[in-house]
Amino acid sequence: MKPRLAITMGDVNGIGPEITVKAFQDPEMLAQCRPLIVGSYDALMEYAQKGDVAASAVRLSEADAGSAWEEDRIGVLEPSGVPPPKVEPAKVVADAGKFAFACVELAVRLALDGHLDGIVTCPVNKKAVNLGGYHYAGHTEFLAELCGCDDYRMMLVADELRVVHVTTHVALKDVAEHITTERVAGTIRLARQTMERLGVPHARIAVAALNPHAGEDGLFGTEEPDEIAPAIEMVREEGPDVTGPVPGDTAFTRMANGDFDVVVAMYHDQGHIPLKLVGFNRAVNITLGLPIIRTSVGHGTAFDIVGKDQADPGSLTEAVRLAAVMAT
Amino acid sequence: MKPRLAITMGDVNGIGPEITVKAFQDPEMLAQCRPLIVGSYDALMEYAQKGDVAASAVRLSEADAGSAWEEDRIGVLEPSGVPPPKVEPAKVVADAGKFAFACVELAVRLALDGHLDGIVTCPVNKKAVNLGGYHYAGHTEFLAELCGCDDYRMMLVADELRVVHVTTHVALKDVAEHITTERVAGTIRLARQTMERLGVPHARIAVAALNPHAGEDGLFGTEEPDEIAPAIEMVREEGPDVTGPVPGDTAFTRMANGDFDVVVAMYHDQGHIPLKLVGFNRAVNITLGLPIIRTSVGHGTAFDIVGKDQADPGSLTEAVRLAAVMAT
Repeated sequence: MKPRLAITMGDVNGIGPEITVKAFQDPEMLAQCRPLIVGSYDALMEYAQKGDVAASAVRLSEADAGSAWEEDRIGVLEPSGVPPPKVEPAKVVADAGKFAFACVELAVRLALDGHLDGIVTCPVNKKAVNLGGYHYAGHTEFLAELCGCDDYRMMLVADELRVVHVTTHVALKDVAEHITTERVAGTIRLARQTMERLGVPHARIAVAALNPHAGEDGLFGTEEPDEIAPAIEMVREEGPDVTGPVPGDTAFTRMANGDFDVVVAMYHDQGHIPLKLVGFNRAVNITLGLPIIRTSVGHGTAFDIVGKDQADPGSLTEAVRLAAVMAT
Repeated sequence: MKPRLAITMGDVNGIGPEITVKAFQDPEMLAQCRPLIVGSYDALMEYAQKGDVAASAVRLSEADAGSAWEEDRIGVLEPSGVPPPKVEPAKVVADAGKFAFACVELAVRLALDGHLDGIVTCPVNKKAVNLGGYHYAGHTEFLAELCGCDDYRMMLVADELRVVHVTTHVALKDVAEHITTERVAGTIRLARQTMERLGVPHARIAVAALNPHAGEDGLFGTEEPDEIAPAIEMVREEGPDVTGPVPGDTAFTRMANGDFDVVVAMYHDQGHIPLKLVGFNRAVNITLGLPIIRTSVGHGTAFDIVGKDQADPGSLTEAVRLAAVMAT
């Protein structure tokens, strides 16, 4: 059986509905998974045109959730008690933020209850979500709380480039104090497990250094010998192929040249800068360490291009593909 | 008159001599500048083959330095009192390190005395240089001291990507304390001046943020409103086209898409990771703020490929071209 995936539509005023419609123009989407769109039926129809697969989607309510998968169709599930907002392209609207997160909440509940095999999220607008009464640093933080999980990691995937971050939403000056042997080792292990789920069982893992030139023998920074190298040693003894600490400015170049399958980066920009430079339209975000499978598009709501038919569904298509691979 | 450029050969046991020979196979090299190679004549001949321009180079001593430019030829200048070492490919040798830095010292002296218009450096081996009695964090630190300069910046150029760093050889945990309004503003000004010398008079400058998501309105880090934004405001009033703070993971992508001509990066890896990923074999390092023009190849001695005829002269060719443009 193909995996059951929920696709949360994100903010109806962003490019979420448009990329959802466009993604389902690709026949691979229905070949890979049984999809359930969690979001506004009307917003989807706003963008669907005659002939689009999405145009024949069926509106479902929470009461139907259990039978959402029974027929060969795309269901659009709307959470009960939270009316779908009117579509107002590129506007920051409290009701749109509230609805977007209510959809995420519903999808997570269904996943935790075993009604689906994974969640793929389209972008929300952080301001709208806050105005809608949800106060979180981001999408992932909200998902993690719903799952009762406080130790998770962010992975980005763009084609053959993959990175797992030891830290993400931390001020740069505070990053170093989070770089502990335990945290780095845990991240390497999660990277290895995830690579297995992604179909790369003996992944060659590079662990990036924190400091320039990997600290140049302690001349500028000692986290490499003190924390990172011991973590690498520890995990290496468990079997995995781990190299490092590799200076940040060679780790990604070497991965691009085929030396490594995944890089463990120490902080947000170290991993995000190279992945977004090389694979901006295709980058996919995967949350590791949750009890459920969750992938996400790598971009935001892109209010600047909403309604102009310019949105590229590439990242969503790839996010669905990776969720399906992991859930199989 | 074409600018007079010194090319220091770097460590004779690295790829310096090979890329020098290969670079001069390109007729553009002699069209752009009058070159003086500062290094070992014998090492150059070790790699030059019949028909190579370098094969007809003339060995000069310091006494000839003043007349080095008088004839249509490539001169190879050897410093007096420091015998050229035997070539021992891929070996770390004290005499090779000592000779390499003696060449740099001589080139800088000639430049400061007005005998040449710029210096292009090939890579040295840091260990060999240390064994040879020179104790510096790097090539640039040595050059800066010879010039009596303690406030300089590193620029990397790879095709249409250009980055100037506010800090470089600093432990990551200490970067934030160096991000001051004054230092950021000074870096933006240097970036603008250098872009003018590189032939881009009205450069569109992006200033990268220090923190992920530019600090997300102070949620993780406040250097953006406290230091970086005021620096941008200050310089903008002087005329330049400055944008920012731009999150690191969009600044380089936008530059690659043509939105900016140069990015001001806050720290080493922020600038080096994207530039080396995109332009590894062509990246050129330019030192800003010195009283002399200095460009350098963007790579190291590459001991792993010495003597295998695999070294790519692309970075050296580009370093000479940029030095010639700046010196004209």
